Amino acid sequence: MDIKALREAHPEHWMRSTAIRALTLDAVAAANSGHSGMPIGMADVATVLWSKHMKFDAKNPTWPDRDRFILSAGHGSMLIYSLLYLAGDPQITLDEVKNFRQWGARTAGHPENFHADAIEMTTGPLGQGISSSVGFAIAEENLRARHGKQVVDHYTYVIAGDGCLMEGVSQEAIGIAGRYGLGRLVVFWDNNDITIDGKVSLSDRTDQVARFKASGWHVQEIDGHDPEAIDAAISAAKKVTDQPSMIACKTHIALGHAAQDTSKGHGALTNADQNTEAKAGWGWTAGEFDIPADVKSWWEEAGSRGASEREAWEARLAGLSDRKQQEFARVMAGDAPKKLSSVIRAFKKQNADSQPKVATRKASEMVLEVVNPVMTETIGGSADLTGSNNTKTGDMGIFDTEDRKGRYVYWGIREHGMAAAMNGISLHGGLRAYGGTFMAFTDYARPAMRLAALQKTPTVFVMTHDSIGLGEDGPTHQPIEHLAISRATPNMFVFRPADVVETAEAWEIALTQKETPSVLSLTRQGLPTLRKEHKNNNLVEKGAYILADAEGKRQAILLATGSEVEIAMKARDILQAEGIGTRVVSMPCWELFEAQEESYRKRVLPAGPVRVGVEAAARFGWDRWLLGERGREAKAAFVGMESFGASAPAEVLYEKFGITAENVAQKVRDML
Amino acid sequence: MDIKALREAHPEHWMRSTAIRALTLDAVAAANSGHSGMPIGMADVATVLWSKHMKFDAKNPTWPDRDRFILSAGHGSMLIYSLLYLAGDPQITLDEVKNFRQWGARTAGHPENFHADAIEMTTGPLGQGISSSVGFAIAEENLRARHGKQVVDHYTYVIAGDGCLMEGVSQEAIGIAGRYGLGRLVVFWDNNDITIDGKVSLSDRTDQVARFKASGWHVQEIDGHDPEAIDAAISAAKKVTDQPSMIACKTHIALGHAAQDTSKGHGALTNADQNTEAKAGWGWTAGEFDIPADVKSWWEEAGSRGASEREAWEARLAGLSDRKQQEFARVMAGDAPKKLSSVIRAFKKQNADSQPKVATRKASEMVLEVVNPVMTETIGGSADLTGSNNTKTGDMGIFDTEDRKGRYVYWGIREHGMAAAMNGISLHGGLRAYGGTFMAFTDYARPAMRLAALQKTPTVFVMTHDSIGLGEDGPTHQPIEHLAISRATPNMFVFRPADVVETAEAWEIALTQKETPSVLSLTRQGLPTLRKEHKNNNLVEKGAYILADAEGKRQAILLATGSEVEIAMKARDILQAEGIGTRVVSMPCWELFEAQEESYRKRVLPAGPVRVGVEAAARFGWDRWLLGERGREAKAAFVGMESFGASAPAEVLYEKFGITAENVAQKVRDML
Repeated sequence: MDIKALREAHPEHWMRSTAIRALTLDAVAAANSGHSGMPIGMADVATVLWSKHMKFDAKNPTWPDRDRFILSAGHGSMLIYSLLYLAGDPQITLDEVKNFRQWGARTAGHPENFHADAIEMTTGPLGQGISSSVGFAIAEENLRARHGKQVVDHYTYVIAGDGCLMEGVSQEAIGIAGRYGLGRLVVFWDNNDITIDGKVSLSDRTDQVARFKASGWHVQEIDGHDPEAIDAAISAAKKVTDQPSMIACKTHIALGHAAQDTSKGHGALTNADQNTEAKAGWGWTAGEFDIPADVKSWWEEAGSRGASEREAWEARLAGLSDRKQQEFARVMAGDAPKKLSSVIRAFKKQNADSQPKVATRKASEMVLEVVNPVMTETIGGSADLTGSNNTKTGDMGIFDTEDRKGRYVYWGIREHGMAAAMNGISLHGGLRAYGGTFMAFTDYARPAMRLAALQKTPTVFVMTHDSIGLGEDGPTHQPIEHLAISRATPNMFVFRPADVVETAEAWEIALTQKETPSVLSLTRQGLPTLRKEHKNNNLVEKGAYILADAEGKRQAILLATGSEVEIAMKARDILQAEGIGTRVVSMPCWELFEAQEESYRKRVLPAGPVRVGVEAAARFGWDRWLLGERGREAKAAFVGMESFGASAPAEVLYEKFGITAENVAQKVRDML
Repeated sequence: MDIKALREAHPEHWMRSTAIRALTLDAVAAANSGHSGMPIGMADVATVLWSKHMKFDAKNPTWPDRDRFILSAGHGSMLIYSLLYLAGDPQITLDEVKNFRQWGARTAGHPENFHADAIEMTTGPLGQGISSSVGFAIAEENLRARHGKQVVDHYTYVIAGDGCLMEGVSQEAIGIAGRYGLGRLVVFWDNNDITIDGKVSLSDRTDQVARFKASGWHVQEIDGHDPEAIDAAISAAKKVTDQPSMIACKTHIALGHAAQDTSKGHGALTNADQNTEAKAGWGWTAGEFDIPADVKSWWEEAGSRGASEREAWEARLAGLSDRKQQEFARVMAGDAPKKLSSVIRAFKKQNADSQPKVATRKASEMVLEVVNPVMTETIGGSADLTGSNNTKTGDMGIFDTEDRKGRYVYWGIREHGMAAAMNGISLHGGLRAYGGTFMAFTDYARPAMRLAALQKTPTVFVMTHDSIGLGEDGPTHQPIEHLAISRATPNMFVFRPADVVETAEAWEIALTQKETPSVLSLTRQGLPTLRKEHKNNNLVEKGAYILADAEGKRQAILLATGSEVEIAMKARDILQAEGIGTRVVSMPCWELFEAQEESYRKRVLPAGPVRVGVEAAARFGWDRWLLGERGREAKAAFVGMESFGASAPAEVLYEKFGITAENVAQKVRDML
């Protein structure tokens, strides 16, 4: 690459973009780890985007109508840290840049949204950024349609690398964005032809331009080091309003460094001589971490360019009616509407009275039918299982190119893309996303589910058909380890409600979280109402509670969740008839029970009685409640699954796998 | 659709393909569940493929040189059951067909490879079939190059639906197949424009033909009900030897039924009147489950068409040298070479002597360097982390279009596609696949990892960078719940070796499995050799064992895995110095320990001493060993992770998260 020619063609731009390059080189060298090549290669694109196009006000990174910038190729984190520092972000100071990848620094190895307001989402696991950005763009379209262009009117810009495009989830994202004509989404592909193992062609020869076009995208191909071409391409992309845009930016990874165009350039460039030589070639004479004053002040001007736009926006917002302003503020803050709790209470009361026998997936739909009309910031959807997941309610409308106000998304057979996009919707602010699939397909959505937990996104994953109770579809579709998977994940609520009332309570908790995603584990099969006595209090909030206490001397405690609470109750009937005092504890949410005070937990699970856990799933994790919490090995047993399931009618499976009331009762007898 | 015209155009073909339709209708109606529309829609394609092209001998479904048939759209399982019954498969009898989806039947809701020999793999989770088929095709290319065309010379045929193509993993598969020019792979796309939620266009408008072409596929578009067009397309596809082929078959789901071309047609068609009407329209007058003799005998002839080819193949095999025949038989049976155990033993001895301090990912490479030359049926690879996963050894060569004998695959940034393809390689027979990625990306590979366990495929997942010990890359890359995820999964071995010797033992076990996949959880950071005294026995086979016993009165047992065994050993030093007799138990494989006799487990974990578990991961699952197995709540503690990790150097993270020898020692002191 002829660096001299680049420098001479656009000398001022060159120094401004090279400020990113120099900071990257210095920070990675100081940390002795990180990824130098990508920020160096994409510095030109980022400079043009941030200085000429992106709507932001560096001092006010949470301004709701800012353009969103997603660094899908998150390993190039020094790109965003450089940009933020240069533009004057109050949180990403020079000290933070110098502290790159150190304990307590905001400048983590990969961008973490909880470390700085200007970081829209956590990226690093490849493909997540581009996939969540689809959700950001959907949120913008939906909110613009609802609240008006005067307060919602922005773009979502994404930088994605070859890795993002090779991850399968990107195909799901591309398909969704193309289908829904997300014209405000602009993806820059850092087309540098290098991955960790070598040239991209080593493992992939896909024509990416043709691939994006096949899904209805507007595509341009440019020299990613030519600021004029970059500028023109962004302008053109913004003008296309009915298609998402992809700009293929031909770049050189680690531009101007000895490692340019090599896979070595992807990683940490820490050779001092080579780095000095690269800076010399770039014409960069400033010291380590030093930015020439003219360059810094130009960048700060770029960073404050949006201030007047922001002020104008604030004026427009102030011009709305009080009611509209309050509603906008409420949804952007993620606060639930006041009506939510009264609606849930009324629903609980009504169902405690009518005591329907319904699958909890159906109960979930019944809850949503009363919640969605009063909580209009919900966006529902399903990965092509709408009728099975029961996620669609009458009032929602369908989100489509012709109806941007629609609140239901047909995600297609794309569990992973759906989960990632839901994260994006939630992260954007102003909306709450929930979406359904079969619980066994937690596996497909996992990378995005974990990211929801890590980046503190209150996405709601509606996972129906949650056990062998789904019957004939067989072991591929029957979750065994999936409760354990989500329960083992930090910062995730896993709800397995036992009936319609618990389902309502679980939804209430899920929909009022601000930093914790929820998994709703729901049955295919019908379940009786067990909570027959109405209580205003949300009992699921305690995580576990005494559903039915022992009559007479308390000799046994049965702990169960979801569909197996009914079995525990039947086992209790058998045991009580034999004079064995038996308590049933419903445990709809382990994480919430764990968070209760010891005194409460002790009241629910006192020492002494024998304990049997009942759950149509793996025992893995149950010992905490059976052997721990004052339990004892010799006085604890579990009735559940020890293998994968099988294909047969549900009742047969419960019988064959021994998950029966009689079996539970026998375990109790055996231990007494 | 003009059924009459179809019938008249090819009357004999029509009746033969309609035998599939009728059986499907009857079996689904009898089960009152299942998916009728797909087998009805794809009956013509399947009939032409199975009768005119597919090389198989119905009575000998395990013939190694058979063509492979993968029903990626596994919900259409009645298609394959019908085909097998009609063609005379000895296992899929008419009784089995009548028992569709019932307990104990081979005819499960989705095809399960462990229920019938002719079912090549378990399908149902969408996208898995098409992705594993890439592995089948790679295996065929590789084995053909090695063993010669006279014994390996077959095709892999796949039927995929819209769901398979929408799943992201299909893009990974398409990319891999295109890159490696897998000319023996032929995918039929059941282009019926219907998904569960409605028309495909509801959620996707991707031009699939353009998409496949973008990745280098040969693509044809045909009327999927025209037997001549189907025949011609298959012939053309077979002739293309340097590109995989996709045949887009325009079909009508539930052809000729009232539910034709609707999403209702996707599911179970159980309305008796409509079914009767459909049969009448088809011209099908036979009774329920009845196949006219002429049709059945034609199908049986098709099923035995391959018998002479098989006999010729057997003669060719018999013509090979004894050594070659034995080797072929050995690898097809999945037997490890005799030399393996002696090579492993020598390696262990050498390293017990030299006591290197190496990361277990490096130790793994050292093992592979001695194993791969004697176990040439291994196929290694990595999802673009070759240098980090240490999966490539000097002797392997690179699998490529120019070198089909190469045993290392650059899978690209496609963890899921890699895992699925590895399953396919293993399922094909004759090869053993292992492949690497970062352990946190277990999440990406999960659907295929679960399927490996369910369908009993001994794939080896090399998961490096297995804790916060990876350091600066931060929480997105640091596994916390991933040990729990794989441990909670039935039929999966999770190995977390503590040093180079345990790593060798783990590999030996993994490479000798026939029905169980293995996860190798390996460190990024260096670890000392702890097994300093050579033992011929494989201690990892016991799952857990006493690494260092207490001196003096045994007051504490420290249980640890992998990198934390070193910490436990240091804690033991501290405690012993204080006169507290401390045993260290290394637990490299919980599943194997669980399988030991009670007497052995009791010897390792006796009642009495306090216990501390040490693992840089979630506690989830640990209570089995801490509170169970004679443990007690008041005398047990855990040192590990209670949250996601962070970005900082590894040593800092261990310190900050409190995973230190001193902390372990303190927990012991607190409980004594």
